[in-house]
Amino acid sequence: MPELRKDPVTGRWVIIATERAKRPSDFVREKVQIRGSGFCPFCYGNESKTPPEILAYRSDGSGRDTPGWSLRCVPNKFPALGIEGSLNRQGEGLYDKMSGIGAHEVIIETPDHNLTLASMLPRRVEDVIWAYRDRITDLKKDKRFKYILIFKNHGEAAGASLEHTHSQLIALPVVPKRVREEVDGAREHYTFKERCVFCDIIRQETESGVRMIAENTAFAAMAPFAPRFPFEIWIIPKTHQSAFEESQKFEFEQLAVILKDMLGRLDRVLDFPAYNYIIHTSPIQEPTTDYYHWHLEIMPKLTKLAGFEWGTGFYINPTPPEESAKFLREVAVPVTTSS
Amino acid sequence: MPELRKDPVTGRWVIIATERAKRPSDFVREKVQIRGSGFCPFCYGNESKTPPEILAYRSDGSGRDTPGWSLRCVPNKFPALGIEGSLNRQGEGLYDKMSGIGAHEVIIETPDHNLTLASMLPRRVEDVIWAYRDRITDLKKDKRFKYILIFKNHGEAAGASLEHTHSQLIALPVVPKRVREEVDGAREHYTFKERCVFCDIIRQETESGVRMIAENTAFAAMAPFAPRFPFEIWIIPKTHQSAFEESQKFEFEQLAVILKDMLGRLDRVLDFPAYNYIIHTSPIQEPTTDYYHWHLEIMPKLTKLAGFEWGTGFYINPTPPEESAKFLREVAVPVTTSS
Repeated sequence: MPELRKDPVTGRWVIIATERAKRPSDFVREKVQIRGSGFCPFCYGNESKTPPEILAYRSDGSGRDTPGWSLRCVPNKFPALGIEGSLNRQGEGLYDKMSGIGAHEVIIETPDHNLTLASMLPRRVEDVIWAYRDRITDLKKDKRFKYILIFKNHGEAAGASLEHTHSQLIALPVVPKRVREEVDGAREHYTFKERCVFCDIIRQETESGVRMIAENTAFAAMAPFAPRFPFEIWIIPKTHQSAFEESQKFEFEQLAVILKDMLGRLDRVLDFPAYNYIIHTSPIQEPTTDYYHWHLEIMPKLTKLAGFEWGTGFYINPTPPEESAKFLREVAVPVTTSS
Repeated sequence: MPELRKDPVTGRWVIIATERAKRPSDFVREKVQIRGSGFCPFCYGNESKTPPEILAYRSDGSGRDTPGWSLRCVPNKFPALGIEGSLNRQGEGLYDKMSGIGAHEVIIETPDHNLTLASMLPRRVEDVIWAYRDRITDLKKDKRFKYILIFKNHGEAAGASLEHTHSQLIALPVVPKRVREEVDGAREHYTFKERCVFCDIIRQETESGVRMIAENTAFAAMAPFAPRFPFEIWIIPKTHQSAFEESQKFEFEQLAVILKDMLGRLDRVLDFPAYNYIIHTSPIQEPTTDYYHWHLEIMPKLTKLAGFEWGTGFYINPTPPEESAKFLREVAVPVTTSS
């Protein structure tokens, strides 16, 4: 008998197939492989092919928009939103609209076309985390923005249009619906119990252990109780904190370690799958300190969404999280020592 | 400048690219083609390869689970939910779960492996609509169910695993989140204005005409103001009605005509795209008569969802609905006269 499970934060239901559960090898999909053929605007020497850099980490004193960087952040060449102008809210009969004001940036994580976050050195992954933090801290000053989203599309199946490893940032003039739902769910739990729901989740998962994958001093990585997707992973800070960018230095360091570790485990268990990850953090202009708890969600791209999911927001997941956690817990990941 | 638009029912925001809009030929995708190779459990003679039929339209007096049918409805061989048992609601610490009770059925729309809804005769499409209605009417009697979803996945990219044209029905023991949002949004509009929001939409769209694609005596087909996907189409009954299955006979007839017409137009404009469609109808055990208005949403599968959409529930649509409506309005669809 399949099982219906409810996400304790958002109230979203998922159907977990407890019989005939799909194992890693049951998913038919394309392996994400770096082909390296053709022109790449994110490689050394092609800095003029992107818009001028907003931020770059350079230890050799090299100049703006020239080679020598180890990480580079640029505006998206085909932005979903425009940075200049005012919101210009308008009605159109019964409809509401506003100008598409916002920021859309690309974080080029390394100059090396052949690396991924899973194969990069830990301190380079840490730089990526610091770049997320630096850009959020800067963009927060712009009061037109209500939410800043950090996300990564890895592999064509996950929506990546360039294979050179990169993350994206979008600053939005409204708090998106899914974020609002999660924040509201967390507030309701807090109002009712005077406890943070994510802190409760960590406590329960640590105790039971069945969905826990790994932990370090600052973070726990687990399969959530009601995952939408097979092999979905949540990385949650152990200490309560609503805003990602306000984390402690040692937390950013530990996040780099556990993120790289999880992506390496996914590569080993699922043979280099496409994935998306998203940082879920507090809306920037709201005091959510007590009840919201930032975290990172990794969603491997193994199944196709169909009419059922679109019609209901109800997901069918063929792999119970207890099984996916076991596979991910037991796989050994080799330590990256070079490049 | 891109434009942010808000769906007036659900409050969902989308980003509409008003410059550099994508035309039909700009989307790279695979054409849905019927290959017809290999064994098909939905073809004549293979009736024993599906679970026993629940419903079949047979004009020749042929027996159950034998050839001779023009439409056949069977339980899904790999159901997402099980029909037997009780809900058995349980807690697990802070989590909630219940047994996966429900119905999961397949409507085999024609015995002819080479047809699609767009190429079938109108009266055969009408039979499909009647089968939806007959199955809903029957399953409504089971008080364990709170919602019945009718949907269709057409083409592999839209999640179809068998190419022989078919629709699906899922009866659920809970009202899904997305349905709840839409019903709540419609109720709020009604509470505030004493008018149905969908009736308001039809009035405004009929007057402006820019997003209208076609209409007949019972239905209007339009591109919605804030579509999530390029070339998204909504088919809305002109007369207020909350439950699909309670429509008048002439409405079912007219729905078949306009649905077939829209799918034919998508085939012509987008060169046989994969698509999903979903009937949005009232929860079966709630009196939503005044404020909810059933309709059918067609979503061609032209773009891939990425981290941004997953993180926000905020969609980026590269084709303004005014443009997609124009393409769909102006294309000529040949009349199907045989098979």
